[in-house]
Amino acid sequence: MLHYTSLVTVLAIIFYFYTGVRVSPARQKFGLKAPVMMSGQPEFDRIFRVQMNTLEWMPIFLPLLWLFAYYVSDRVGAVLGLVWIAARILYMVTYTKAADKRGPGFAIQAFVCGVLLVGALIGIVTSLVHGG
Amino acid sequence: MLHYTSLVTVLAIIFYFYTGVRVSPARQKFGLKAPVMMSGQPEFDRIFRVQMNTLEWMPIFLPLLWLFAYYVSDRVGAVLGLVWIAARILYMVTYTKAADKRGPGFAIQAFVCGVLLVGALIGIVTSLVHGG
Amino acid sequence: MLHYTSLVTVLAIIFYFYTGVRVSPARQKFGLKAPVMMSGQPEFDRIFRVQMNTLEWMPIFLPLLWLFAYYVSDRVGAVLGLVWIAARILYMVTYTKAADKRGPGFAIQAFVCGVLLVGALIGIVTSLVHGG
Repeated sequence: MLHYTSLVTVLAIIFYFYTGVRVSPARQKFGLKAPVMMSGQPEFDRIFRVQMNTLEWMPIFLPLLWLFAYYVSDRVGAVLGLVWIAARILYMVTYTKAADKRGPGFAIQAFVCGVLLVGALIGIVTSLVHGG
Repeated sequence: MLHYTSLVTVLAIIFYFYTGVRVSPARQKFGLKAPVMMSGQPEFDRIFRVQMNTLEWMPIFLPLLWLFAYYVSDRVGAVLGLVWIAARILYMVTYTKAADKRGPGFAIQAFVCGVLLVGALIGIVTSLVHGG
Repeated sequence: MLHYTSLVTVLAIIFYFYTGVRVSPARQKFGLKAPVMMSGQPEFDRIFRVQMNTLEWMPIFLPLLWLFAYYVSDRVGAVLGLVWIAARILYMVTYTKAADKRGPGFAIQAFVCGVLLVGALIGIVTSLVHGG
């Protein structure tokens, strides 16, 4: 079993959960009772979009992380996963301040997913060709 | 293979799929043709938010369920998964009636995820420490 | 390891990622700066909904694909996964043109998920009954 990747998966889920936790006090601050979602108030919408964008990337990040861990390396995958979480935290902090500051955090986490994808793809194709 | 967890995974997906199926007749009832999403009509928005919130929790529930099943117990994980589905059904039924009644179902399903997370974390760390 | 299913998983993630990539130029075309999401402009909303609907189906498609691959067949699962991606591409192309043309692509991808679900369910129950 891929213990390091399992651990980073739990950490990524805790972080993702936290991006949703932040929406509730933001709702109260701006007087937006559920089920209302979009407010037209950019400060609330940015906090909401951080959660949504992280949700959008979970089905990209988690499967690629596990395919990379299996086909390439549990430990290298886990380190890349930690970088992804760190970049996501940067994205959350900067996007919450201003929409046009979210670029670097977003770019790093996307780059990490690209590395996971290329690694996984090489590993899968190698296994298929060599009949592994 | 973790057969009981596999079965509960399929049941959870069927439930989640159903939360989306409910949106289509609600669209017709309120005359909201796709791609329109938010209506400003609370009755529609609550039905839509049940689907969205379940979607938001799928990347929390499913990975934690499987990590718990692997590191702790397939059968205990499956039972917790059934409790999660039941709490989600309660959340769906109560939220559809009124937004301020959705608390108990939401709290129970979140608690179940917390138990899955703590169990998985203990199992992972134990395996890492003992070199399992 | 289920190499063919791994490969199709990566392809499905690339496609899903692409549905999100399309939103960014659409934002610029219609002058919708983040964090604004819903525009009231149907042409933008359709492009956004293609991404959202694909996101909504990822937690249905991916787990069912893997359960089917494990319990039934890696190769048959991978072929069904390719059909799912093709139907999703059809859905994307037709929905982008007009909302009422999205039916066939949507129906085919839903049917594929139904086949994956029934296959997985039969495999799981058979294994539970036979103590496999």
